Amino acid sequence: MNLTGELLIGRQSVRGTHGEIRAIDPASGETLAPAFGGATRAQLDQACALAAQAFDGYRETPLAQRAALLEKIAANLLALGDALIARCVSESGLPRARIEGELGRTMSQLRLFAGVVRRGDFLGLRIDPAQPQRMPLPRVDLRLRHIALGPVAVFGASNFPLAFSVAGGDTASALAAGCPVVVKAHPAHPGTSELVGRAIQKAVEELGLPEGTFSLLFDSGLEIAQGLVSDHRIKAVGFTGSRAGGTALMQLAAARSEPIPVYAEMSSINPVLLFPHALGNRADAIGKAFAASLTLGAGQFCTNPGLILAVDGPDLERFLAAAEAAIAQIPASTMLTPGIHRAYGAGVETLGCHPQVSTVARGQAGAQYQGQAALFSTTAQAFLEHEALRAEVFGAASLVVRCPDLATMQRVVESLEGQLTAAIHIDEADYDTARSFLPALERRVGRILVNGFATGVEVSHAMVHGGPYPSTSDGRSTSVGSLAIARFLRPVCYQDMPAALLPQALRAGNPLGLAVRVDGEMQPGHQPVAHTG
Amino acid sequence: MNLTGELLIGRQSVRGTHGEIRAIDPASGETLAPAFGGATRAQLDQACALAAQAFDGYRETPLAQRAALLEKIAANLLALGDALIARCVSESGLPRARIEGELGRTMSQLRLFAGVVRRGDFLGLRIDPAQPQRMPLPRVDLRLRHIALGPVAVFGASNFPLAFSVAGGDTASALAAGCPVVVKAHPAHPGTSELVGRAIQKAVEELGLPEGTFSLLFDSGLEIAQGLVSDHRIKAVGFTGSRAGGTALMQLAAARSEPIPVYAEMSSINPVLLFPHALGNRADAIGKAFAASLTLGAGQFCTNPGLILAVDGPDLERFLAAAEAAIAQIPASTMLTPGIHRAYGAGVETLGCHPQVSTVARGQAGAQYQGQAALFSTTAQAFLEHEALRAEVFGAASLVVRCPDLATMQRVVESLEGQLTAAIHIDEADYDTARSFLPALERRVGRILVNGFATGVEVSHAMVHGGPYPSTSDGRSTSVGSLAIARFLRPVCYQDMPAALLPQALRAGNPLGLAVRVDGEMQPGHQPVAHTG
Repeated sequence: MNLTGELLIGRQSVRGTHGEIRAIDPASGETLAPAFGGATRAQLDQACALAAQAFDGYRETPLAQRAALLEKIAANLLALGDALIARCVSESGLPRARIEGELGRTMSQLRLFAGVVRRGDFLGLRIDPAQPQRMPLPRVDLRLRHIALGPVAVFGASNFPLAFSVAGGDTASALAAGCPVVVKAHPAHPGTSELVGRAIQKAVEELGLPEGTFSLLFDSGLEIAQGLVSDHRIKAVGFTGSRAGGTALMQLAAARSEPIPVYAEMSSINPVLLFPHALGNRADAIGKAFAASLTLGAGQFCTNPGLILAVDGPDLERFLAAAEAAIAQIPASTMLTPGIHRAYGAGVETLGCHPQVSTVARGQAGAQYQGQAALFSTTAQAFLEHEALRAEVFGAASLVVRCPDLATMQRVVESLEGQLTAAIHIDEADYDTARSFLPALERRVGRILVNGFATGVEVSHAMVHGGPYPSTSDGRSTSVGSLAIARFLRPVCYQDMPAALLPQALRAGNPLGLAVRVDGEMQPGHQPVAHTG
Repeated sequence: MNLTGELLIGRQSVRGTHGEIRAIDPASGETLAPAFGGATRAQLDQACALAAQAFDGYRETPLAQRAALLEKIAANLLALGDALIARCVSESGLPRARIEGELGRTMSQLRLFAGVVRRGDFLGLRIDPAQPQRMPLPRVDLRLRHIALGPVAVFGASNFPLAFSVAGGDTASALAAGCPVVVKAHPAHPGTSELVGRAIQKAVEELGLPEGTFSLLFDSGLEIAQGLVSDHRIKAVGFTGSRAGGTALMQLAAARSEPIPVYAEMSSINPVLLFPHALGNRADAIGKAFAASLTLGAGQFCTNPGLILAVDGPDLERFLAAAEAAIAQIPASTMLTPGIHRAYGAGVETLGCHPQVSTVARGQAGAQYQGQAALFSTTAQAFLEHEALRAEVFGAASLVVRCPDLATMQRVVESLEGQLTAAIHIDEADYDTARSFLPALERRVGRILVNGFATGVEVSHAMVHGGPYPSTSDGRSTSVGSLAIARFLRPVCYQDMPAALLPQALRAGNPLGLAVRVDGEMQPGHQPVAHTG
């Protein structure tokens, strides 16, 4: 498939006429063909109008058809074969194996949501049957289901050009919920976006779904992003990116005449707590594992371990020595974009030049746009006093905070903002100490992991990739895993509605065989859950 | 129990020293004793500090203990007996039977949530067991539960001095979720608030729970309300009141350095759609039932039928004649506060004086602070053109929109903002027509009811009392019914956590016997659900 540089608006492919975007191969610094036309306001309007027109039809598609759409998108992505992988590698600078793995994850996300849709539990069906004999007043018949919020704006993320971009987690969960999607492509990978967008566009057509179910726009500036979030037909936003970007979208959404939910996954330094016995017994091993996690994918993960907390002393020195030795061997690697590389350099310089910070280790130096890993250390007192030491440095940089004792380490934890994850490294003798840290961690993170690092996010049912502000805009939800579908739903109750008008899922006799809560008691579903590939 | 006019801060009763509030009996216009002291900023700070201290302990109380708290509050309310009923009647001007009924509802809400807590489904437990043999990478063990958001600020509502005030739905659902509550009492019923607050304070003490689990503040101005929503220890807000009030809280919450969710139930005109065959067959009966719903409780319900849509013609005239005759018989009734009475008068005057509006009926005139019912009519064209005709008039006022045909009626529906409810009156011959209206109604309301009126909100599992903005600030939730507990929860995932550190509910063997989703499949709970009274 040849790239055209066109917008995908419903069934059409049209040239955007508001400026141009070109991808850069960060490994070579070269500009890649073709030029992608930025959308005009009129083209944005057309995509939103189509999405609004598609909404009522799309949200009422039979569950099997909606599941088939998600599976068809996965199949169409696979069919793109090497063209997709190669373009994605060129545009992201990420290694081929990583992109292959990410494509697999993207397809398995789509299939996970296909299974969720078929199962139908996400509808959250509830029935409180009428009680005509109840005294003093009869009880009405009440039936509840969840319906889709409306058209959703999805912003592609730079660091997951497949798994959190055009057909990524936000798109999959929104489509699963019954929401049409308008994607604003990330300018770093427009070619990947077009290829993936065409795979979705084709799937929508193959399944005979309303054409506005999906559109893909390129933005030559910020106008389309802003216009999309402000458009009255858009009812929710999914975003993964910087704190500044996410906060700007939150403000736009709150300022609308009808405010809408924004699900922005923004920034996190993912504290890692090394407890005394674990550190005493395994300082070397933890140090090596940490270095590997820190530098994976040039550190360009939301879950990168950016902060290490431990009690100062010889065991921590051993950890630092092991980490230093490992990091020193690690070659620089290409970062996603020149802008990210520049910001990483600036962040590293800010930390490195801070009077209260020492440089522990640097990775190997590299070529243009390559990030050189960096490990720093500071004292708990300095960390508590200097706001600048808390900022996320997106990339393979981390700061070790030397705490004089566990009580101070606890104070440092209590000083942290909301985070996606926290990792604790513990041996059995640490359990009692660790237990006293858990409440503070639960209050400020979405996932607590033990004896591991958070890079590597399992896409499953019990995953939470979310957390209190500012790690996300809305800590009540997750952006990874099947629970993400809940973000795009709202409850609607039908009172005394005749069967002929009720949604099929709520009719007497449970014709769809879905799980339903009757008078508060859960009745499991009884339909066969079809194989979802 | 004698009223003291004191604030309840944790276990203490202390005099607020920032101004005074006095209740007015709207039936007599007389000021009631005692004077209630408004809280100072320092007292607000103390309540928030106690709530924050209580949070970790309270949210981890055994489910049975938390359920017992809710039941104890209900029992303590009942024990207040006539003192509570009499004071509440004096402060609200509502009839005694209504207040007795509302107390019953308040107690049954508390017991409903006690049952929800015991059942434990609200924890949304999920387990994806480890797969150590999985290729190419082993799968980690993931376990998810929902935890409470943190201390919640609850604003008492004027129109439900028991059921949506100090121990009302917001407090019950927040306490059920595991959130400490700081209530800002509504100034219209401070005595009722103190009595109810003491019943809660006593229950917290009787159950041996952390003292900051509950506090009650009076506000002599707006400072405590604003300070509460802005306090960094408050993590969510529950509010029922005006659009202006709710919007102000939303803006305060969005402007915090850590934005928090606001659940504001604000305004709704609750469209009633009369379809041709139903109107043809039952115009008189519907007209009479409408008049009764309109004037119930002086029309002071969020679900009051403020807008009637029908095709113009003789059947509509019969409906109007029946409604007019019924309304003309209805005595004026005392409104909740002088302010609400004044606003009602102004709203009625605005409608009545509008050049495009005709007055159809007025109820009987009354004494000071009594509301006189009012029914108006206008044309679809005028309604579509004049924004002023869409404003909620809180009280027994309603506007009939004469539509030339069903297509115009559909356009009027599509022009409406978000609403709590919509009612459709249909006979079987209307079903096909009504079906074509349902998507537009689903998109903009939380509850669709058939052949009834929305006043009278069943407190059960399948109820939705919510809807898209501006009927509420957050259409993804309900403020009535057991699903309301979801508003105060967020998911936390535990990865590879040893059993000794896991929350009990997530340990192997399901020691609490709760429902849990394993690898996406729901496993029902197996604990006996204790009788909850």
